[in-house]
Amino acid sequence: MERVPILKIGDILLVSIQIDMEDQTALQLQEDLADRIVATGCHGVVIDISALDIVDSFVGRTLASIASISKVLDADTVVVGMRPAVAITLVELGLSLPGIRTALNVELGMELLARQRSEDVDDPFGEDEDDPETPVVPTP
Amino acid sequence: MERVPILKIGDILLVSIQIDMEDQTALQLQEDLADRIVATGCHGVVIDISALDIVDSFVGRTLASIASISKVLDADTVVVGMRPAVAITLVELGLSLPGIRTALNVELGMELLARQRSEDVDDPFGEDEDDPETPVVPTP
Repeated sequence: MERVPILKIGDILLVSIQIDMEDQTALQLQEDLADRIVATGCHGVVIDISALDIVDSFVGRTLASIASISKVLDADTVVVGMRPAVAITLVELGLSLPGIRTALNVELGMELLARQRSEDVDDPFGEDEDDPETPVVPTP
Repeated sequence: MERVPILKIGDILLVSIQIDMEDQTALQLQEDLADRIVATGCHGVVIDISALDIVDSFVGRTLASIASISKVLDADTVVVGMRPAVAITLVELGLSLPGIRTALNVELGMELLARQRSEDVDDPFGEDEDDPETPVVPTP
């Protein structure tokens, strides 16, 4: 089984997916990435998919679950390098990658994560949001 | 034919080799990398081989010719992420990767390139060879 390497650059973990994702590879990547986030304390994950010709629903789900796992471990995820043709196919297939943020390339993705992080640090509990917390209305 | 993606991060081009290098892939990578160095004006190339189980003489030659091509285009090359077993096999095979600098991981490779660059910029013609090491300026 092939393994996707995870590269640490500053506060970011960079993953460049170049192989066809199969069940085992995807699960292994999720596990490796979770381990590395915990081991390094990184707050951002950049996933480069510029080598992928096709992003099907399986890859979409894998990306979404990586983003969710990272979020639980206090790391944000950005998917970068999507080819125009891939974006068109995704929309035609009705896949909109919900919950996944994207950027055009690695540099813009890293900027997005840094900006996001500084906003989170300035405002850790989201107190300055316009809308005050909505009170929980018990269902009758 | 598969293509190895080239990621630009600041003044560095990062290449993560995850597939078995064949003649065509290697030639294509050399060509793509030369094009990107010229297009971006980057001064450093980091090649991550942490996904490779084997580095044979063909891969060794490919890495060496990438380093030579980059050098002619005013970019330094560092190979990073070599596995211990790969290093042992290389030496056993009598391959010592002449002309290729290595670092343990991407971050150390980028530091090495930044240090190398600042020395080159301070001392473009190699006149002050005895001067103390210039401090490393971390890339943002």
